[in-house]
This record gives sequence, C-alpha cells and structure tokens, in this order.
Amino acid sequence: MNKKTSNAILLLSCPDRKGIVAEVSHFIFANNGNIIHSDQHTDTEAGVHFMRVEWDLTDFDFPPSRIARAFAPLAEKFRMDWELYFSDTTLRTAIFVSKLDHCLYDLLWRIRAGELPTEVVAIVSNHPDLKPIADFFQIPFHVFEVTESTKREAEQKQLDLLNSLQVDLVVLARYMQILSPSFIASFQNRVINIHHSFLPAFSGSKPYQQAFQRGVKLIGATSHYATDELDQGPIIEQDVERVTHRDNIQSFIEKGKNLEKKVLGRAVKLHLQHKVLVYNNKTMILD
Amino acid sequence: MNKKTSNAILLLSCPDRKGIVAEVSHFIFANNGNIIHSDQHTDTEAGVHFMRVEWDLTDFDFPPSRIARAFAPLAEKFRMDWELYFSDTTLRTAIFVSKLDHCLYDLLWRIRAGELPTEVVAIVSNHPDLKPIADFFQIPFHVFEVTESTKREAEQKQLDLLNSLQVDLVVLARYMQILSPSFIASFQNRVINIHHSFLPAFSGSKPYQQAFQRGVKLIGATSHYATDELDQGPIIEQDVERVTHRDNIQSFIEKGKNLEKKVLGRAVKLHLQHKVLVYNNKTMILD
Amino acid sequence: MNKKTSNAILLLSCPDRKGIVAEVSHFIFANNGNIIHSDQHTDTEAGVHFMRVEWDLTDFDFPPSRIARAFAPLAEKFRMDWELYFSDTTLRTAIFVSKLDHCLYDLLWRIRAGELPTEVVAIVSNHPDLKPIADFFQIPFHVFEVTESTKREAEQKQLDLLNSLQVDLVVLARYMQILSPSFIASFQNRVINIHHSFLPAFSGSKPYQQAFQRGVKLIGATSHYATDELDQGPIIEQDVERVTHRDNIQSFIEKGKNLEKKVLGRAVKLHLQHKVLVYNNKTMILD
Amino acid sequence: MNKKTSNAILLLSCPDRKGIVAEVSHFIFANNGNIIHSDQHTDTEAGVHFMRVEWDLTDFDFPPSRIARAFAPLAEKFRMDWELYFSDTTLRTAIFVSKLDHCLYDLLWRIRAGELPTEVVAIVSNHPDLKPIADFFQIPFHVFEVTESTKREAEQKQLDLLNSLQVDLVVLARYMQILSPSFIASFQNRVINIHHSFLPAFSGSKPYQQAFQRGVKLIGATSHYATDELDQGPIIEQDVERVTHRDNIQSFIEKGKNLEKKVLGRAVKLHLQHKVLVYNNKTMILD
Repeated sequence: MNKKTSNAILLLSCPDRKGIVAEVSHFIFANNGNIIHSDQHTDTEAGVHFMRVEWDLTDFDFPPSRIARAFAPLAEKFRMDWELYFSDTTLRTAIFVSKLDHCLYDLLWRIRAGELPTEVVAIVSNHPDLKPIADFFQIPFHVFEVTESTKREAEQKQLDLLNSLQVDLVVLARYMQILSPSFIASFQNRVINIHHSFLPAFSGSKPYQQAFQRGVKLIGATSHYATDELDQGPIIEQDVERVTHRDNIQSFIEKGKNLEKKVLGRAVKLHLQHKVLVYNNKTMILD
Repeated sequence: MNKKTSNAILLLSCPDRKGIVAEVSHFIFANNGNIIHSDQHTDTEAGVHFMRVEWDLTDFDFPPSRIARAFAPLAEKFRMDWELYFSDTTLRTAIFVSKLDHCLYDLLWRIRAGELPTEVVAIVSNHPDLKPIADFFQIPFHVFEVTESTKREAEQKQLDLLNSLQVDLVVLARYMQILSPSFIASFQNRVINIHHSFLPAFSGSKPYQQAFQRGVKLIGATSHYATDELDQGPIIEQDVERVTHRDNIQSFIEKGKNLEKKVLGRAVKLHLQHKVLVYNNKTMILD
Repeated sequence: MNKKTSNAILLLSCPDRKGIVAEVSHFIFANNGNIIHSDQHTDTEAGVHFMRVEWDLTDFDFPPSRIARAFAPLAEKFRMDWELYFSDTTLRTAIFVSKLDHCLYDLLWRIRAGELPTEVVAIVSNHPDLKPIADFFQIPFHVFEVTESTKREAEQKQLDLLNSLQVDLVVLARYMQILSPSFIASFQNRVINIHHSFLPAFSGSKPYQQAFQRGVKLIGATSHYATDELDQGPIIEQDVERVTHRDNIQSFIEKGKNLEKKVLGRAVKLHLQHKVLVYNNKTMILD
Repeated sequence: MNKKTSNAILLLSCPDRKGIVAEVSHFIFANNGNIIHSDQHTDTEAGVHFMRVEWDLTDFDFPPSRIARAFAPLAEKFRMDWELYFSDTTLRTAIFVSKLDHCLYDLLWRIRAGELPTEVVAIVSNHPDLKPIADFFQIPFHVFEVTESTKREAEQKQLDLLNSLQVDLVVLARYMQILSPSFIASFQNRVINIHHSFLPAFSGSKPYQQAFQRGVKLIGATSHYATDELDQGPIIEQDVERVTHRDNIQSFIEKGKNLEKKVLGRAVKLHLQHKVLVYNNKTMILD
C-alpha cells in the first residue's frame, strides 16, 4: 500500500496556540516528507485551530502503518483531535436510494469517470425500481422494504450489511426515509444527505412546493451531514438556480434535479478527499 | 406630454378566456399604435390571465389623456384589473434611510447615471448622518426622529410629506424602522424593501449573524414589497453570493452590501419600468 | 394527431410594421384557439419583427393538417418567413459521439427522465467504445470509421442513414470530427454542437489547455448551431464556472464536463421546444 | 508602527524542495510569532513553490524594521524571491480616470466604507469632468491633457507626480489612454486595469459592441495587471453576467458597469491585501 504515489493526509483540531503549523510541518520535513498541500483555519471566537496537511510519502521515513504512532506524542502535546488518511486507501461507500434515479446515476457516472475516488460496495433501497441501474454499473443492489412496523428491523439489517462490507461513507441519494438516531450515531459525520432546498429555508417535506408557494426567485439544494435533527446537520455545500413566474412545480423539480446532482457530487468529493472538518455544527473545507 | 418618443404601458389581469391578447392588440393596432413589447402569463391554477403591453404613441389616434376612456369598454368586457402608464411620466420616489449609506449611494448614482428612470423628491431618515450625501446629489433631506413614543406622530408627518410631494414609490434603503400597517396600506405594492438574507431564511433581525451561526455556504439578499407581515411580502428579486468558513460576520456584511445594492437596484428598476405584477403574494415580471 | 393536449407553435419573422401581433392573434382567436404563450422581439436596427406564438388546439376550427393553408394568406400579406410545429409531434434526433461519454449519458438520461421531448433514433460514432451505453438505453448504435481518405464516403453514409430515419436534429455530443459544409447545408440550424470554451475565446482545438495557459479565472462552454466556419455559428447557450490557480488541466476538464452537459442540455431543450430563432448569425430565445 | 494589531505578511517563491513550509513556519514560531494565515501552492510543471504567510507581531522577537534582515539567510538558503509587508502600512494609491465615473465612485465608496485598505493620494485624469467627485471625497484631482503630441510629456509629469507622492499602486478605472511600456515598467505588477470583456475574448476597443455583434449569452469584465501588450497581462479577477437578445448595446453597457465595479473592486482588494502572486503571466491568489 506504500506505493510511490501515495500521500498522507492529516486532519486535526486543537486549542489555538503558537507553533502548531511549525511543529507539524517540522515533523513532516524532519522525516523526509514533502508537503503538497497545507491549509489552516483558526476559529478565533472558539479559540480552536484547524489544520489539514497532505504530504508525499515517497521518501518518508515511516511506512504508513507506523506514522500514527510516530505522530502521537506531538498530537498529545497540543491536545489534538486528529485523523490520518492515505490517498491510496479508497473509501468504501454505500448509496441509499428510493425511486428517484438522478442522483444515483450521476454519482455512479462520476465514480466511473474517475471524478469521485471511492468504491461503491452496495446500493441500498426500500424499493426494487433502480436495480437495472445497479446492474448496469455492476454494483450489488439490496432491497430492504421499510414500513412503520418493519423500520427498526430493516435498519438493523442495513447496519449489519454496512458493517459486514466495512462501509466508510453512506450517501443518501434522495433516500426517502428518515434514519434513526442510533443509525446516525454509528456513522457520525459519515452520512451525507442531499436536501432539495436552500436550507434553512424549506426544510422538511415537499420543499419545491413550499418554494413555489412562497414565490422565491431562486431555488436551491443543500448537502449536509445527517444528524438527529432533520435537515439541521452541518452544511457541506449549497447552490441555487434562478426561477421565474413562468416556472411551475414540474420545472422547479427539473431544475432542482440538476442542482441536487451538482451539489451532492461536490459534497461527496470533498468528503472523499478528506477536506471537510466539522466543528460546532458547521463545516470547514480545508484544501 | 404626448411627445414623439412616449410609449403607453398597459398592465392588466383578468379571468382567463379566449381572445384577450387578440382584442387588446387589436385595440392598439386599430388605433394606429405600434406594439413594442408584449408579454403574457396565465396562472392556470387560478384561472387568471396577466398581460403587459407597451406601444409607441407616435401616431396613436388618442392623446394619452383619453386612452383610458377609450380602453374602458374592453376592460369591462373582460372584467380586467388594469393600470395605464406612460413612459415619459417619471415616477416620483422617496428613499428612506437610517445610518447605512451603501444602498442610498448606489441608488442615487444609478439614478444620476440614467439607469433608474425616476426623480427622487425626498430622502427621509430617522438620523441626520447621511445628509451630506443628499446635499451632494442635491436632494431634500428630511429627518424625523423616531422613538417608541413619537413613532406614530413621525409616521403621520412622513405620510403628509409624501402626499404633499405626490410620491409614487417609497424605497426602504436599509431603513431600520418597521412601518405601521396603515402606512403600508397607503402605499400598497409601492413600498420596496431590501432584506439582507435569502428569504424566507433568516427573516427578522440580524440575518447575517443568523446565517453565520447556521454555517450556510451562500448568503443572500431579497427585495420585496413591504406588507403588514414583516419580511413576508411578494418577492421581486433575490440573489446570493458564496461564503466560506474563512468569512466572518464582518465579511458577510461586506459581501452582503454588494448583494443588497444589486438586488435593490434591480427591483426598483423593474418597478419603475412597470414590469411587476403582484398576485397571490407573488410577483410576475412581465417584459 | 389532433389530440386534446396538442398545441400549435408558430415561429415567424417579417419586416416590422404595425398590426403583426394583432392580426396573428386575431387569426388564432377568430378560429377558436387559446393562446398559451406569445413572445415577440423587434430588431429595430434591422427592421425585422420576430414572433413565437403557441396556442391550444382543443377547440380550434382547423385540424393541424389544414392550419398552414389557412394561415398562408396572412403570412403572405406580411411577407413572413414562418414555420409551424405541433407539440405532440416529437422531433427525431441523432446523437453523434466519439469516445467521451459524459454528454451522451446526460442527454440519454434527460430524455428518459422526460426533460427533453425527443426520440433518439440513432447514435452515430467513429468509434465503437460507447456502444454499451447505447445498448443500455436500447438505441441503435452505428459506427462509421472516419479517416482522411474515407471521410467523404463516411459522411455520405451518415447522411443516408439520417435521411432514411427522417432525422430532424443532429446533436454533436463531443463528436471529434468536423462535418463538411455540404453536410451542414443539409441540416441548416439543425446541427447543435457543444464547444468546451466560452466562445469566442479559445475556439479550435484544446480549449482547456488554451484557457489554462492564459490563466483565466472562469472556464466556459458554448452550445451553438454548427456552420461552415468552425466554432462561429449562432450561439444558443453559454455558461461558466470558476477556476483558481489550484486547478490543473485535469480539473479544468472535470469541471468542464459538468458545464458541457448543462449547456448542451439546455440548448437541445430550447431547440426541441421550438424556442430558438436564428437571424444574422445570432439566436433569439422566444418563450 | 509596531502596534499590537499589526501582522507581517511574507510572499515568496522559490525552487520547490522539501522543508520550505517547515523552515518558514519554524522561523516565525521560534521568534514568537503566531501564524494567522498560511497558504502554499506548487507549480509542479515549473517546479516552483509559492507561499504566503501572515503572522501576528504582538509578541514577535523582532521589530518590523529588523524582520527582513533576520529572514534573509533563510531566503538565501532556499533561493527565494520574497516581499515583506505589514498590515498596518497602508498602500498609497493613484486612480486614473477619463470621463466615466462608475468605477471611480465605487472605489471611493469602498475605500471610505473601509472595504479597501488604502489611501488615495491622487486622482489623475485627462479630462476635468470628474473633479466634483474628487472634491466630494476630498482627494486631490490632477488633469493632464493627453494628445498625440503631448502624450510623452504628460506621462512624464504623471510619473513625477506619482513618484513625489510615493504611490504604490495605480488603478486604471476606465482610463481611456494606453500607458507606454516605460510607464508600465516603472510600476510592474502595480498597475491594475479593468477591461470590459471576458478576456481573452473581445480585447481592444469597443468590447461591448464586439460582444453584441457576436451574439454571446454572457458578457464579462476582467481585471488584470497592465503589461506592454494590450489586454494580455496576468488576470486577477473575472466575472460575467447573463444577457439575452432583448439586450442592446446600451443595456450591455449598463450591466457591464456593475460587472466592472465588482471585478475591479475585488482585484484591488486582493492586491491591497498582498494576496496576489504573479508567475508566468498568471496570478495565484494565496489566502
């Protein structure tokens, strides 16, 4: 796994004080790493420092498996929360869908085109409708029927499946079910949802109808990490498109589909590149 | 007033039925008018037809003062609500401000540059701060101090002033007071406000702080006709700008000022060109 | 074909004079048509009037097959160039591709989703690579190998195919061959191309490389009708996306693919809805 | 000048090798500086590393006047091109104008509003028209009439003025004269121009007319550093706005003015914040 082209990616947050950047970059330099990208942000109000640094492992003194141990003392000194990733370790994704196919299609196309560095190990649905697409892209498709009475059981089966497949990321690609808090807790900041409005406007159901009713001049889409509170999680990406009085709900939906695809695609990409840090129910995109 | 370059502009709404466009355009043609612009919209749900038609009066059979009478029978036949304007009759505007100068500046510059066809007959404020700008642009500046106890009286004086000046349009250019329902009633669909958020998100006070708190990735501004319900009136124009975690409230405000200027300028222009129809608390922009 | 939901769509241009709108709308009204949309534009410099009018045929006095004859005297009186379409007559499209699949995919998805009202009767390529996609969407796939020496012959075969299939519209979805003037002449204003730059900047080959070299801050895509002069045809739609110094050619291409899909999809939709008029190597989008 | 709130800003470029970030951040840390922002970029093709680092000088071991000397050995070791700025040293700007007032107005308003941290020490024009604006903002206004025969002499007088005023930055706010290569050479990468098109499209004169003629669907504005070749300098910022067939040259100009103001304002701000690095006729915006 320690191939020539592999990079290490370190994400960290810690109480703000002098020397963080200096010591982290020194750690990398002293061990023969070459920094490719480095980005910092300080939340001055909260007094917290955030950092993402990516370095080339070609000549690095430690093999990937030993970097964490080598870095631990520095992390402890600065009381860091930190995560270490490797660019050649592909995250394993499960995509949840219901009957709408546009986001699924778009994700699978982007993955196949090499835009999104992930392996889709399962498509999970509460309906069988989209199985032909899964077949075309040769991805296992699992149907778990969800009703009021079977919801709990179905979720447990889904979790079992995700665990057995060692899933890193769950993408809700217009999955029309609300996941339970315990499910969310198992995948904290690892469930990405797409909501078809410019949040916090029009949360909840039928956002395009709400937007049409209000007479807005722009419609939006928002991708966020799912949390216990519906549509209240940390926003990763948003975008909007212009509408006029000539648009009806049907054309809102059509324009919205394009927005949803674009916004979800970007959010998933940022996550897969380990560029998203979450703090205080907000995201920072470090590059 | 019946100069060669004058156009008539007819705005109408009526129950949808066959023949509206045909008969209105025939009325114009039969009387030697040349249609310059014509735009229609049908709200199929409500069964209402909306139309804006603008024609050149150069060879028109009627002088402007007699067009309304000539058109009345047709309007009655189709049970129209209608308004008639003339492009060479400049609307008279009052701009209300408090202490922030960016929208005032921008409006006055646009007016002087010929972008906004109106005459500003008064700038009204609850503070004296912006008088130098009014002086530079040579526009009368009126201060009405507003406190809890004097609010009612101050509003009456403002109304008296507006009436004495025959004001057609009131623009609230970041005026920090809420107008009373009776004031609004006197200027229905003729008070344009700028709210510094993407409505309906973040209505009320301190929208940039709210947006910052929520961690949105785009901030917005909304221009709407003021109604009795705060920030709930018909939206004329909206726009957004991208923000990141690097932005703070200060930069939200700075980016927001640009948005506010742009959005308010566009909304005022559409109104002055008689391109806005209001129905069901929404606007249609007919061109 | 005269089903209840069918509309007639009339596109016309003629020397500007009084009465065009009135007489056209009278023709429709007098024969019991209900105007759904009507849009006009006058090129005052050229003295030409353009009009698009769409009306409901439910109670119309003439069956579709006889409308043209009924309208002809009026058209002659105003010396109109005109075309008549029916909303329930689906245009027949051929999509030309080479090896890149993103535009093809996107078009086929949009068509299947009902966003683009057309029937794709053939996919034509100079390479076999994209056949599996054609198979998945169950559309006949034709390979015509094109080399310097066989180009002329291949084009003739393509033309024969298009004619035998009664193709109305050719979409060049990143087809990497330049069509000959005689081919273009056979499909005047019916060949839509997507060029991956913001024309007129970076016409010709390798536009992303050119853009990268120049250090632009936005990249674009342009959809236009193909004409004899490469990348000089009437522009139907354009859009841009922001890039930074962090982008490289690879990410230009990736961002560009999204732009190309969006811009081509919009242009094809406008054409299929008969909303595009061409004059003086420019397009008007009448709604 | 070493006030509590002052930051030092270091801009550098050097051949790419390991340890640059580590050693620079160590230099700051070891001398008790606290890094506020740090941004890097490597042009892998050219093998050049670029860096911008900003640190709080509150407890820094060196006073500003001695930092350069202290840093020099490190700079030499890595063969850096480098510049050192202090956030409390305000750049001195001269604005060049002709008769159009929109960019001048906008810049002066932004400066007074605190958006652009600079002192305007002179407004230079070849016409007296905009003097009232200069007077209102209380900035010295200098007229240098420029004709074919006096151009050389006028430029020399302008240069003398700029030198006597110790001008750091020249902003061409729709100044309708082309500066000579020798003038440009005196202010390399310190003359910011605004061109009213989306460069490289429509360089040279009358870009809106060119854009109208070509029938583009978006118009643009571009701010760049002036170089010897007209409109070919490194692009700092660009933006676009949508136009339709309904727009004429007049409305192109009006929409364009808004674009020009926005784009020029952003470019000047980036320069004043020392966020722009130039390499290979391109800019990098380091944050």
